[in-house]
Amino acid sequence: MIVNGKPTRTIWLGSDGETVEIIDQRKLPFEFTVVGLRTLSDTVKAIHDMFVRGAPLIGATAAYGMALAMRENSSDAGLDNAYSELFAARPTAVNLRWALDDLQKLLQPLSPQNRLEAAYIRAQEICDQDVETCSSLGEFGRTVIEDIWKKKGSPDQINILTHCNAGWLATVDWGTALAPIYKSFDSGIPVHVWVDETRPRNQGASLTCWELGQHGVAHTLIVDNVGGHLMQHGMVDLCIVGTDRTTAQGDVCNKIGTYLKALAANDNDVPFYVGLPGSTIDWNIDEGVRDVPIEQREQSEVTQLTGVTKKGVVETIAIAPSNSEAANYAFDVTPARLVTGLITERGICEASKDGLALLYPDKVLRL
Amino acid sequence: MIVNGKPTRTIWLGSDGETVEIIDQRKLPFEFTVVGLRTLSDTVKAIHDMFVRGAPLIGATAAYGMALAMRENSSDAGLDNAYSELFAARPTAVNLRWALDDLQKLLQPLSPQNRLEAAYIRAQEICDQDVETCSSLGEFGRTVIEDIWKKKGSPDQINILTHCNAGWLATVDWGTALAPIYKSFDSGIPVHVWVDETRPRNQGASLTCWELGQHGVAHTLIVDNVGGHLMQHGMVDLCIVGTDRTTAQGDVCNKIGTYLKALAANDNDVPFYVGLPGSTIDWNIDEGVRDVPIEQREQSEVTQLTGVTKKGVVETIAIAPSNSEAANYAFDVTPARLVTGLITERGICEASKDGLALLYPDKVLRL
Repeated sequence: MIVNGKPTRTIWLGSDGETVEIIDQRKLPFEFTVVGLRTLSDTVKAIHDMFVRGAPLIGATAAYGMALAMRENSSDAGLDNAYSELFAARPTAVNLRWALDDLQKLLQPLSPQNRLEAAYIRAQEICDQDVETCSSLGEFGRTVIEDIWKKKGSPDQINILTHCNAGWLATVDWGTALAPIYKSFDSGIPVHVWVDETRPRNQGASLTCWELGQHGVAHTLIVDNVGGHLMQHGMVDLCIVGTDRTTAQGDVCNKIGTYLKALAANDNDVPFYVGLPGSTIDWNIDEGVRDVPIEQREQSEVTQLTGVTKKGVVETIAIAPSNSEAANYAFDVTPARLVTGLITERGICEASKDGLALLYPDKVLRL
Repeated sequence: MIVNGKPTRTIWLGSDGETVEIIDQRKLPFEFTVVGLRTLSDTVKAIHDMFVRGAPLIGATAAYGMALAMRENSSDAGLDNAYSELFAARPTAVNLRWALDDLQKLLQPLSPQNRLEAAYIRAQEICDQDVETCSSLGEFGRTVIEDIWKKKGSPDQINILTHCNAGWLATVDWGTALAPIYKSFDSGIPVHVWVDETRPRNQGASLTCWELGQHGVAHTLIVDNVGGHLMQHGMVDLCIVGTDRTTAQGDVCNKIGTYLKALAANDNDVPFYVGLPGSTIDWNIDEGVRDVPIEQREQSEVTQLTGVTKKGVVETIAIAPSNSEAANYAFDVTPARLVTGLITERGICEASKDGLALLYPDKVLRL
């Protein structure tokens, strides 16, 4: 997507053909900083310290990390070491493990002197595949938006609510929930996005607002409490959110607060869509509310906030009494009954076992 | 309620019998500062600059403001001037107008030399009446909590979710939504409160946490996105919120985001109660979603936040890109169908025309 007027991905090979360049996303929206990764340890740090976030981007970064490691030590020991160091950088990230397994399987049989080139080629392929997946998902999603827009008589504005950041910053390009919005915008549909702030980490305010603004997409920031009111008053035409994990029956585990917006959409007959690459479907779990474990994170994410002062200094402030406890559940599960449809790279389906089976017959477990 | 171990109200007459003392609530939770009001203009400033907030407390402060004004000028002109200056300090506050009308009606017929004493006496009465109203509401609400607690087998903890601050800080003492919680706590019921942060002004994090903590009530701060997840997992036994305005059919206009919690409560069979003094019922409006106008406030409340740095300095930071627009709807309306019951100073009733008519037969408009 566009940054400062130029097409940009979240990860790319530098002009020297060796350095891997990424955006230091921790500094957004206040600074756009490109960082060059030159070593395995640079990459481990970038993943661990969250310069990069979002499952697809973490996977792509890890793949390039394997390539950078091969420049330093392409022996079997070097390969094993790269795998374990990268894995330890963010052990809960499913795509990280997937990318590492993929690279290891590719490189292991090769002789050490051939591993470097093969790793770079494969990392590039992983990036390009991700872009293709998101682009395809975006194209299918665009038809959903276009249909709703046309059914309403092609008004001057179609209002889409989103939660958190499932934009191109979380992937290599296009994004998941935001891909349909970018595709619509690029094709001339007058989209306007209500951006949920998304406490506690504020990815909506800091990342979604930033990337939509850079690409030129009209948007308005709201606190997480507002969406229900907007839907009661006909000010939301549809919702699109992303997902961290979708169960085999179509329950959607996504950033905390998604469920509340799905309830409001359901109560006001607003279509509620989820954008997801098939890789985020967990075919081993059906009942999301019961069976998806929900991560609890640091209290300080709730009791403190980081932003920039009038003087331009990035500062962290406390917003609660120091002796109050806080609880920080990172995700919630939206039951499939509240989801209008799943938008994937293979098309759109009902959020149900049958719906998913039609799109992913090759993935459905034969029991 | 208790502050630093001592019973405290939000407004009281100083030991000199003239000065009116209030808490500068703008500084909570980081500083507990008592401010003495000695003049009409002190009072106008305290109301306008939100040293005090919450409808009942604003009314009580305005009443004392009339008394302070009589010390300066108890002539008819002085009375008129006090009314108009205090009214202009917060023209949308219904209780402000009510208190001013009450004082004016009382003082107008009196000779100037008798107005000062009468005003002080009446202001004190208004405060005491508010305490009595909230205390009565709290006692009725306590029975609701006790019943639910006992039905669950009197567990070690009963979990109550609340939104925003409808505590004693918004009234003279006890509060509205929190009065039943204080009454329960004081009678030995093991209450634990989930406190919604309540963006954008964070009254939950800053005020509700502070007052519960000072009184010794167990509580946990959560971001506004979390309540639905907690209810899905049986971690909320009931919700109690306050209201700014309740319609004649029981629709509840309260802080933005209340509707989302009511939806989640309804989806998970969690009782959802609203605590309110009868004075907040608007007998002229039935359809809340359609007919209650919703105030929009400054964008900066969404894009900026104030807190305290590690060095103890109160600082305001921006949390969004400077070129992103924000929308700031202050309230939403929860339809009566989502409300389990209304807890008032006269008892508990169904959120409906019939329910309210049983408790307030004297108020129901005869059409």
